Amino acid sequence: LNEYSSKLLENAVNELSRLPGIGKRSALRMALFILKENPVYAANLAQSIVTMRNDIRFCSQCHNISDKEVCEICANPKRNSGLICVVEDTRDVIAIEKTTQFDGHYHVLGGVINPMDGIGPNDLTIANLIKRVGDQSVEEVILALPATVEGDTTNYYIYKMLHLFDVSITSIARGVAIGDELQYADEITLGRSIANRLPFDQNR
Amino acid sequence: LNEYSSKLLENAVNELSRLPGIGKRSALRMALFILKENPVYAANLAQSIVTMRNDIRFCSQCHNISDKEVCEICANPKRNSGLICVVEDTRDVIAIEKTTQFDGHYHVLGGVINPMDGIGPNDLTIANLIKRVGDQSVEEVILALPATVEGDTTNYYIYKMLHLFDVSITSIARGVAIGDELQYADEITLGRSIANRLPFDQNR
Repeated sequence: LNEYSSKLLENAVNELSRLPGIGKRSALRMALFILKENPVYAANLAQSIVTMRNDIRFCSQCHNISDKEVCEICANPKRNSGLICVVEDTRDVIAIEKTTQFDGHYHVLGGVINPMDGIGPNDLTIANLIKRVGDQSVEEVILALPATVEGDTTNYYIYKMLHLFDVSITSIARGVAIGDELQYADEITLGRSIANRLPFDQNR
Repeated sequence: LNEYSSKLLENAVNELSRLPGIGKRSALRMALFILKENPVYAANLAQSIVTMRNDIRFCSQCHNISDKEVCEICANPKRNSGLICVVEDTRDVIAIEKTTQFDGHYHVLGGVINPMDGIGPNDLTIANLIKRVGDQSVEEVILALPATVEGDTTNYYIYKMLHLFDVSITSIARGVAIGDELQYADEITLGRSIANRLPFDQNR
């Protein structure tokens, strides 16, 4: 006897439980929800997944997810193409766009260098970043990768590849988050935010 | 500018975030995972969802999810058809089957009476339960609904409908903490509570 009383249910639970953060129990809850909903929902959900996977494109310049050959950010003449912010993935672009503080372009690496997972520089879009800096009139590259060993390794690799070009290479400020209390910040972050202090009238 | 850089990504995130327990952030994480995986995964996931939704059937006797007209439990001649355990949904059947303490049949109500959500007795499979008890040589009906106000209301409603029949009505023992759902109880406790069931009118 099949644990789920049905091969159809079992298949759906198995496929759903491959999604990140979803165990068998959550997958079963999702499957039962889909069964209770109108069949139109199951059809729309399935269609959106397959269409996305088959038709999605990546911007030929910045490698961000895009529906066109060149993404809306890269194609926007109002944005500063002399400023490139290097990020790990699309979620970072979404987060930075939400701040409305950045008017430059992006470069989406698709990951960070991680020898343990077998991810080297050639698995990322680093070569194209070098090419962009070489070809275009790029003035500044902002490194906005995660503050992890892998992020730092990637930062350093990119720095080594770019430092002979006539481009300034910066890194986003690390410090105590606005709204966080000092006593709860970790020591490295707090130390960094003291070392990198700014004149009061510049720091807002 | 679309927040997700892509209508295709946005559609998938919107559909995924309708699933229970999934917010926009988890949905985005899932969508990016699907994009990184082999397209075969997206196809299999979508196929399993649509096939399940379109082809799933419910057992004509117990209303549990089934791939056939009569489910494997109801069709199994080794199981005791004189004993019916009444549960809310398929997850409860799965949980009780895992204990291996129960050799009877089930009756899946599809919910519990919940006036706040507009769910009355006619929205559940209670009429068919009465019919099963009337038609067949059922000796005992075990009530295994959640220990909530709605579960108790449903228990009482079923008790009122069945108590004139020549059938004993029992309720699973609550060694399980009140307020916990069946599907989250550990197997030993849940198995014990089935073995120690008591007549309904003694068990309050």
